[in-house]
Parts: sequence; C-alpha cells; structure tokens
Amino acid sequence: MKQAVVLLSGGLDSATAAAIAQGEGYAICALSFAYGQRHALELAAAERLAKFFKAVEHKVITIDLRAFGGSALTAEIAVPEGGDAQGIPITYVPARNTIFLAYALAWAEVRGSRDIFIGVNAVDYSGYPDCRPEYIAAFQKLADLATRAGVEGRGITIHTPLISLSKAEIIKTGIALGVDYSLTRSCYNPDEEDRACGACDSCRLRRKGFRDAGVEDPTRYQH
Amino acid sequence: MKQAVVLLSGGLDSATAAAIAQGEGYAICALSFAYGQRHALELAAAERLAKFFKAVEHKVITIDLRAFGGSALTAEIAVPEGGDAQGIPITYVPARNTIFLAYALAWAEVRGSRDIFIGVNAVDYSGYPDCRPEYIAAFQKLADLATRAGVEGRGITIHTPLISLSKAEIIKTGIALGVDYSLTRSCYNPDEEDRACGACDSCRLRRKGFRDAGVEDPTRYQH
Repeated sequence: MKQAVVLLSGGLDSATAAAIAQGEGYAICALSFAYGQRHALELAAAERLAKFFKAVEHKVITIDLRAFGGSALTAEIAVPEGGDAQGIPITYVPARNTIFLAYALAWAEVRGSRDIFIGVNAVDYSGYPDCRPEYIAAFQKLADLATRAGVEGRGITIHTPLISLSKAEIIKTGIALGVDYSLTRSCYNPDEEDRACGACDSCRLRRKGFRDAGVEDPTRYQH
Repeated sequence: MKQAVVLLSGGLDSATAAAIAQGEGYAICALSFAYGQRHALELAAAERLAKFFKAVEHKVITIDLRAFGGSALTAEIAVPEGGDAQGIPITYVPARNTIFLAYALAWAEVRGSRDIFIGVNAVDYSGYPDCRPEYIAAFQKLADLATRAGVEGRGITIHTPLISLSKAEIIKTGIALGVDYSLTRSCYNPDEEDRACGACDSCRLRRKGFRDAGVEDPTRYQH
C-alpha cells in the first residue's frame, strides 16, 4: 500500500487533508510537531486523529522554535482576539511551514514515500506568507533539488488538497469523507477544560466555516 | 553593526564562511545543530570557533534527525573509508541542509538579520544534492516567499561564499583571513582522543586541500 507523510496538527484542516490522502488510497504516516505551542492539547488532538486514521506510524518531533521567539504562538505575547488587523498577524511563526516541510521531506525520503500532504489553505486563511500557492510551488522545486529521490528521478510530491477551498468547502469535503471534527481543535486560547474561546482568529474562521457549510459545529465553546 | 546568521558546524568550510562574513563587516550569530551526530566533538569545535569569531550569540538547536535514521552520520551504519563510490554517499543526511536553512531563516527573521552564510561547496564536495548552486537558488526563492521579511520587501539573502572554490582555495582564503584551522574538525571517525582517522572522505578532502594549498595541515591524525 502506498504511504504518504501527512502533516497533522490536530486542527480541522490537517484532519481533512489526512482524510483526502486516505480517500486517495494512501496509508497515513502522521507527522506532528511540539514546537513550544501554548497548549499540549493540540498534540493530544493530533494523537486522537492519528488513531482515527489508523496511521501506520505517528511521529512527534520536538523542535526548538520557542528558543527563537518572535510569535504569539511560541513566545509570551498575547494572542489577539477579534482581529481585523492588516498584514501578517502576530500569530505567524517565522519560517514554520518551511521547517515542518523540511522534516516531512527528510522522513519521506527515509521511508521511501513519494508523497507529502499538508493542509495549507490560501482562501480562508490568516495571511501567513507560507500558506500561499507560490510558496508551495517554490518548496516543490526545492524538494526536487534537495533530495536523493529528486536527483534519482523519483521525486517527492507536495500535495495541498485544500489550498483553493473555502473553510466551508473544506468542512463539507471532510464530512463527506467521514471525518469526526469533534476530534479536532483550532482554538489558540482554550480554557483548562479544552473549550474553545470562540473569539480568536482561528475560532472565528472555524465557526463561520461550519455555519457557511450548513453543518453543525461539534466544537465546545466557552460562550 | 550588521549581523549575519552563520551556520557553524565545527568544520573547515563553515569556519571559513564565518571568517568571510566577519571580513565583510558582519557580527556573527552562530547557529549549530545537535542532530544525532556520531560525535559531540563536532559541537565542541563549533563552540571553540564561535568564541574565536567573538559571536554575538551561539545557538545550538537539538534536532531529531536520528529519529528518522537513513544515514551513516545519524544511524548505526558504518562510515565507509576510502571511497570511490558513485552517486550520493551513505553519509548523506536526508534533507539536512533544508532543515538547517529553515532554522536559519526562522532565526534571521526573528533577529531582523537580512543575511545567512552557509559554507556549502560544490567543487571538492561529497556529492550531496543539497550543496549544489541550483539547490541554493531554489532555497533563496523559497526564502523570498516564506518570510515576513520577504513579503515586506526586506528579503533575507543566502550567502554561499565557498560554493565555487576548491578545498585548497577555501583554505588559502581562510589563512589570509587569519582562521586558526587547528580549531576545526572534519573527520567522521575520530578516535577517543579526537584524532582524525585520515581515511574517511572528509579527511581525504581535507588532507588533499592543505597539500594543494601548500599550507601545513594542523590536524592531528591517527596515522
């Protein structure tokens, strides 16, 4: 059975990307990162999802982004609520997807897998530069040049099945594939009972997505 | 004073790249990786060199490449001696430079540095795909798209001052800049007294480089 490395954050998007990979006949090699996130709860969700998708293997890589700081998601900076801020938000983690994809590339190469799935999205997204199609195209080009597989003509393909979908379309796709979204989490500011704040950018996008999709949102919100 | 992130492995090439950066007026922000190398001695050399170059900061990032395996440098595979092997050698670490440069990019972005120096070399090199000029060009393109700095028009430049130099030219350049090569180490198979084996690919390239440069080799060899 062909295997794909799937970046699994525990959120709604990566869960849907995993479901799409599975729907295309890939066994899932799940890859998650402990990168000084505010909440280990994100990794707990990734763990649940890896089980849900019967992942061949689930690797959690600890990376040291907190040592660099520079983001509300890794440093002691408050996550903003209710944002209409312009430009790249404070929750942007410098070079995060580049680091994640570099590890995915290494693992795919070692495993002999020729496919990587990442749930980036350039429609209902937060304005991060490393979620755009031109960024992914540049990483694909890099991957072709960086690896033994690429040099030997057995290239590794970066799949971004969500890149041009709205949040509502992502949710409808996932529902059709049987994803249990109650296993996922999106909130940057959950409380101690893991209830979502409902107010951060990520919650707002998620709520609106379920509403627009006409699907009941299984998320437990604080209010 | 302008600052550059310099990838400092403890070897001859990265030491020379650091000297060139310093010669161009940059203060050095040294970045090293503990990536399951066979020998912590490599990091000890990086530490010595960071002091030698009066680095503003020396960050050592622990990364989990050993978890992936797949290389003689990170897994329990013997390092070959005296190699005329064709193609990409077994010491190739999958996607290593991609991971290293991704971290360098993150750190440069957080520091507000616009320059990264890496001592890759495409002449007297070991056949790794991620040391070639076309690979570096692809990473530069990625960096321009991946970062806040790139999006906002203050791009981060990847400098590869050694890329088209022979090993002898690298050594002559470093000597002219005052590099103390006795602080560096190249060997993949040193003994317990940190004496180089003299037989691995890296030792052979180093020895030949000093010979061709007409410079005395300060390395302590086992024989």
